[in-house]
This record gives sequence, C-alpha cells and structure tokens, in this order.
Amino acid sequence: MTKFADMTVAQLLAALASPDPTPGGGTAAAIAGAMGTSLLLMVSGLAKSKNNLDEEKAALAAAKSALEPVTSRLIELADADTGAFNDVMTAYRLPKATDEQKAARTGAIQVALRRATEIPLETLRACADALPHARPIADYGNQAAASDVGVAIGLLRAAAEGAAANVRINLKGLKDEAFDSATEAETSRLLAAAAGHQAR
Amino acid sequence: MTKFADMTVAQLLAALASPDPTPGGGTAAAIAGAMGTSLLLMVSGLAKSKNNLDEEKAALAAAKSALEPVTSRLIELADADTGAFNDVMTAYRLPKATDEQKAARTGAIQVALRRATEIPLETLRACADALPHARPIADYGNQAAASDVGVAIGLLRAAAEGAAANVRINLKGLKDEAFDSATEAETSRLLAAAAGHQAR
Repeated sequence: MTKFADMTVAQLLAALASPDPTPGGGTAAAIAGAMGTSLLLMVSGLAKSKNNLDEEKAALAAAKSALEPVTSRLIELADADTGAFNDVMTAYRLPKATDEQKAARTGAIQVALRRATEIPLETLRACADALPHARPIADYGNQAAASDVGVAIGLLRAAAEGAAANVRINLKGLKDEAFDSATEAETSRLLAAAAGHQAR
Repeated sequence: MTKFADMTVAQLLAALASPDPTPGGGTAAAIAGAMGTSLLLMVSGLAKSKNNLDEEKAALAAAKSALEPVTSRLIELADADTGAFNDVMTAYRLPKATDEQKAARTGAIQVALRRATEIPLETLRACADALPHARPIADYGNQAAASDVGVAIGLLRAAAEGAAANVRINLKGLKDEAFDSATEAETSRLLAAAAGHQAR
C-alpha cells in the first residue's frame, strides 16, 4: 500500500472520498493532527523578535524538539489506522462454516479490533502530548502568527476527538473488560485534557 | 508555485512546518475542511443497507452532489490563501521613502489585506455550506461509519473556526468600516451555525 506521506493531497482526498471504508476518519484525524503539529513547528521557528530572551528561545527550541517526533508518529499512525481497519474487515470475512472456523474467526476479530482500538488511542495520546506545547509557542512565537497557533490547536483538538470516537467505536466490539475500562478511562482523561487547550 | 493538490502529504506537512509564513493556518484549515467533506462523500456512498428507501437514497445522492464542488472549492482556497498572504507580505515590502511611495504602499496593503480576508471568508462559507449535509449522511449512511461522520464534522468545525480566525486577524488591518462590520457580522453568523452541528 502507498504510504499516505507519499500520496499527493489530491490522492489522499480521493481515497478518503471513495466508498471504500479505508482510509477513514482515523487516518484523517492523524493527518489533521500532523497538520496541527506542523503549524506549531512553523511558529516555533518564528521568534517574537530578535530580542527574545534566552529562556524564551530555549522554550521555543524545546517545543520544537518535542513536536518533531510527534509529527512523524502521527504520519505513521495515519498508515497504521488504515492497516488496522483493513485487518478487522479481513477477520470478519474469515469462513464460519464449522465450530472451529467460528472460534478462529472470533479470535481473529478480537485481535484485529484490539489493534484498531490501540492505534487511534496512540493518535489521541500523540495529540494530547502535542497540545501543551502550543502555550510556549503562543507566548514566545511571533504574535503575527497567533491565528496559526489557533488553527493548530483547533486541528489537534478535532484530531483528538476524532481519534477518541474511533477508539470508542472499536472498543464496543471488544470482550476484554479490563482493557475496555482502562481504555475508556484513559480516553476520557485525554479528551478532557485536550479540551482544556484554547486558542486565544 | 506547486499547487497543494499536487504536493505529497509529506511535502505539505514540511511546507507547513517550515518557518516561512506561508503556507499557514488558512491553507491548513482549507485542507482540513476538504478532508471533512471527503469523509462525508465516502459515507454518502455507503448506504445503510440494500433496503434504503428511495427517498433516503435520493437524500444521500443530493448530499454527494452538493459536497463534490465544495471539496474542489476548498482545495482551490488552500492555494488562494497562500497566494493572498504572499501578496500581503509583498505589499508590506514596497518602498516607502517618498510620500508617493508611502501612499502607493498603503493602497497596495489595503488591497492585499482585503483579499487575504475574503479568501478565508470563502473557506468559512464553504465549511458552513458543507456541514448541514452531514445530517442526511449520518441518518441514511451506514451506521458503521458513524465515527467517520463525527470526524468529518469535527474537521469542518475546526476548519471553520480556523478560517474565521484568519478573517479576523486580517480584518484588523483594514480601514473600510462598512466591509469590516459586514464581514464580522457574517463571520459570527457562520461560526454560530457551524457550532450547531454536533457529532452524535
């Protein structure tokens, strides 16, 4: 499969728009999150003025260092989300004529759904990790780029919410109660944290 | 300039992340909006069942027909936003040694800022136009794609809010009071309408 990073934007949009179930919202959320971290990276490189204090420059550099791997991670997660959902569909299509086939199919669906839950959970974690870095960037970056920071926060929050929706829809099919409740608790906590970041 | 549609996703993200002021939040918002309309198009092609009523099929087809040109428009606006902001920067760099140069520069800045306001306003309008189509798609599309509709709504709302932030930041520099107040009124109205669309 072509990696999303290597597709043109037109190809990405056509792939999202096609009636094939993948790529879907999980992939779109990860790419939107990567657009958000990329905008934050831009502003981290646009110092407020030549007179930024050394500690302000250090804060911008620290935010930049933290956000670069998150961006790469989100691009990987865009691919992983489509892969995981394709595996779920493959598992559902396994034969179910005999009891053994039924048992194997049920097991394969559980494995695939668990992964299809963990991938958007990783996307949610990545967006939640990225959002706190918007603060020093808003404070010490160029004020002419304030609307870029605002767009970044909005995209990261939408990505977090979209990833959470995907976690929850796949969690419904999972039969591991301990994993279910731990995942739902983490999802709620990360969503609440993401909602606390506002554009100014 | 390479059109964003023809850039790979990796190139787009690198361009957003570079310290060059363009592409910035206005372009990212338009592309996020196009990802939202593309996801809605996907679900418009995933009927709830083979037994969808004729009127339900017609509603899905109508939503699809309405959303296709909005998607194309948002891709154009991604390019137009970067072009408009580049023109603003070019205008600010005009010479200002003589009174005539100062007057010409002031005039050029006003023309460029007006366009840099109108483009994100068009993006905001496009997102506001797209959002109502999420309802029939959520109602009559495949319920397994409910989270895709939710992600689409979140992206379109984030795109609308990001576009509005860009309208407002450029409006600040404009000296045409009638345009300012009409634009601010329309922006507020469209943002309120966009905020009324919720994922379920």
